[in-house]
Amino acid sequence: MGPTDAVAEATLVTLNDIEAAADRIGDLVLRTPLVQLPHPQSPDRILHCKAECLQPTGAFKLRGAYNTIAQVLDQARANGIVAQSSGNHARAVAWLARRLSLRAVIVMPDAAPPTKIDAVRELGADVEVVPSALRDVRAHELAAEHGYVHVPPYDDPRIIAGQGTVGLEIVQQLPEVSTVLVPISGGGLISGIATAVKALKPETRVIGVEPELAADAAQSLREGRRISWDPQLTYRTVADGLRTPAIGVHPWAHVQRYVDDIVTVTEDQILAAMRHLALAGRLVAEPSGAVAAAAWLHNIAGAENDGGAVAAVVSGGSVDPALLAAVLQPAS
Amino acid sequence: MGPTDAVAEATLVTLNDIEAAADRIGDLVLRTPLVQLPHPQSPDRILHCKAECLQPTGAFKLRGAYNTIAQVLDQARANGIVAQSSGNHARAVAWLARRLSLRAVIVMPDAAPPTKIDAVRELGADVEVVPSALRDVRAHELAAEHGYVHVPPYDDPRIIAGQGTVGLEIVQQLPEVSTVLVPISGGGLISGIATAVKALKPETRVIGVEPELAADAAQSLREGRRISWDPQLTYRTVADGLRTPAIGVHPWAHVQRYVDDIVTVTEDQILAAMRHLALAGRLVAEPSGAVAAAAWLHNIAGAENDGGAVAAVVSGGSVDPALLAAVLQPAS
Repeated sequence: MGPTDAVAEATLVTLNDIEAAADRIGDLVLRTPLVQLPHPQSPDRILHCKAECLQPTGAFKLRGAYNTIAQVLDQARANGIVAQSSGNHARAVAWLARRLSLRAVIVMPDAAPPTKIDAVRELGADVEVVPSALRDVRAHELAAEHGYVHVPPYDDPRIIAGQGTVGLEIVQQLPEVSTVLVPISGGGLISGIATAVKALKPETRVIGVEPELAADAAQSLREGRRISWDPQLTYRTVADGLRTPAIGVHPWAHVQRYVDDIVTVTEDQILAAMRHLALAGRLVAEPSGAVAAAAWLHNIAGAENDGGAVAAVVSGGSVDPALLAAVLQPAS
Repeated sequence: MGPTDAVAEATLVTLNDIEAAADRIGDLVLRTPLVQLPHPQSPDRILHCKAECLQPTGAFKLRGAYNTIAQVLDQARANGIVAQSSGNHARAVAWLARRLSLRAVIVMPDAAPPTKIDAVRELGADVEVVPSALRDVRAHELAAEHGYVHVPPYDDPRIIAGQGTVGLEIVQQLPEVSTVLVPISGGGLISGIATAVKALKPETRVIGVEPELAADAAQSLREGRRISWDPQLTYRTVADGLRTPAIGVHPWAHVQRYVDDIVTVTEDQILAAMRHLALAGRLVAEPSGAVAAAAWLHNIAGAENDGGAVAAVVSGGSVDPALLAAVLQPAS
């Protein structure tokens, strides 16, 4: 165990942390439903989709961000907040800042699409655009210079505890759950969910799902050490929310301890899942949000054989309209 | 007041009936969330969308159908059930029959698309296809001949009470609600919702919304009498769930008493609302399910001026994939 791993081990999130997060965030975060998705080959096989795409900002990111901000609200009110992200985390932090009347600076990579930058600006946040490689450093710099509260995207116990409320709700809403499928990228979401699920129902399996083209976490779990993939590799997948080159240090400690397996899905399987979620589940999912459902639809995670109730997290729904239109075309 | 109106008046649904329905249907019906939809011109203007499109069969119809069947379950188990519908009601009754192990016969009009007929058959129901004009008569005949429990689509107090649970939930989920927008066709949904809302919060406005091309209910309310539109007129609208030529007798008694206004939307407004619901609300709505949101988006119902919280029922999401793809195209 290296020194960073030891730090992470010392700050493993507990069920108590997650229950405290649930109490903190309930006024602004939606208790999302489990939406029943029938299998195309049998109306009696049901996937219970935890519809995080229905959060006010379109993704689960609101949970961890709010759990972090709520614990240092006085400092945030006095000085403001800063976060780095090109996507759903940026939008969540900007939205929370508007609701809570906080000043927010969002550090975004110059590779982010102008529409995403505009969406964050429209919420009233200041955006600072930097080269992609510098965004983490710049966020820390701004926090140090101005006393901003820093709201990191995933590598933080408060973020993990906030995302863990998804797992708490799944067990409450589906007490008989036997398998939970979760998209994995930086690892904050699955870390929190696995911590909650294993504390409440140790026999329930928690399976991570990532694109075959960005399978750093699957390789890490197989080899027993955190492995980074070059962004030039991970950027091949359509699932733009899952391109993080490696799982975070804090998440890695949770994943090693609590996650049963990590499986991968192909690009075609992701697009087919988006289509089925829209037409049979009436849920708009972005590609990253559809990977867990894709694993179930294509019998990849072994969940089809465990005879129990299967849940999958539909983590977000911020999708390019042209892509969604394309997957819905009857010929696709 | 004519003799049929007197009958309907005598069987006005009460808040007690709706609360009893809520107790009956909770094990199979989803308590759908209020999903926040921001206005395209201002992130601070929010429509609270009651997402009935997320029910297991994709529409609110499950509520009234189950409330009806649950009250005569012994007869339904012994003899079976029968219903007439070409759309969401057919699917709801067939799905309930499968879940409750009942025999079901669904009378469908020969004008129904083969895909809808197949979807009902796949759920295990027997389908009898008849000329459109005969479907009500045929359902009653089958009920009389075989002792089937008849589950009508809207013109029945048990159906109205079941649909009214939507209104109960809206007031529980959004106690400050000032306006509720509801699609109107046969009138079962708005009758139940208006009954619940006016009992709990008499100052809250309940507004019906229908397509300009199928505006029989708006004309009826304006003229103070039930008016039928020729199906050749109502069939012009893309909102196929709202083509019923006239409001039902039981619903009419409730609408006259409890509904504040009925407004209309154009075909273009319906399609624009489908697009905005998908991209900003992550909800797939069929055209009929999008009319209430369309009225809010286009400032038609006066709700933009009442200074309060506005809810709209997104009643269903069974949409033709090609139509959904078309409204999502950036050029549309």
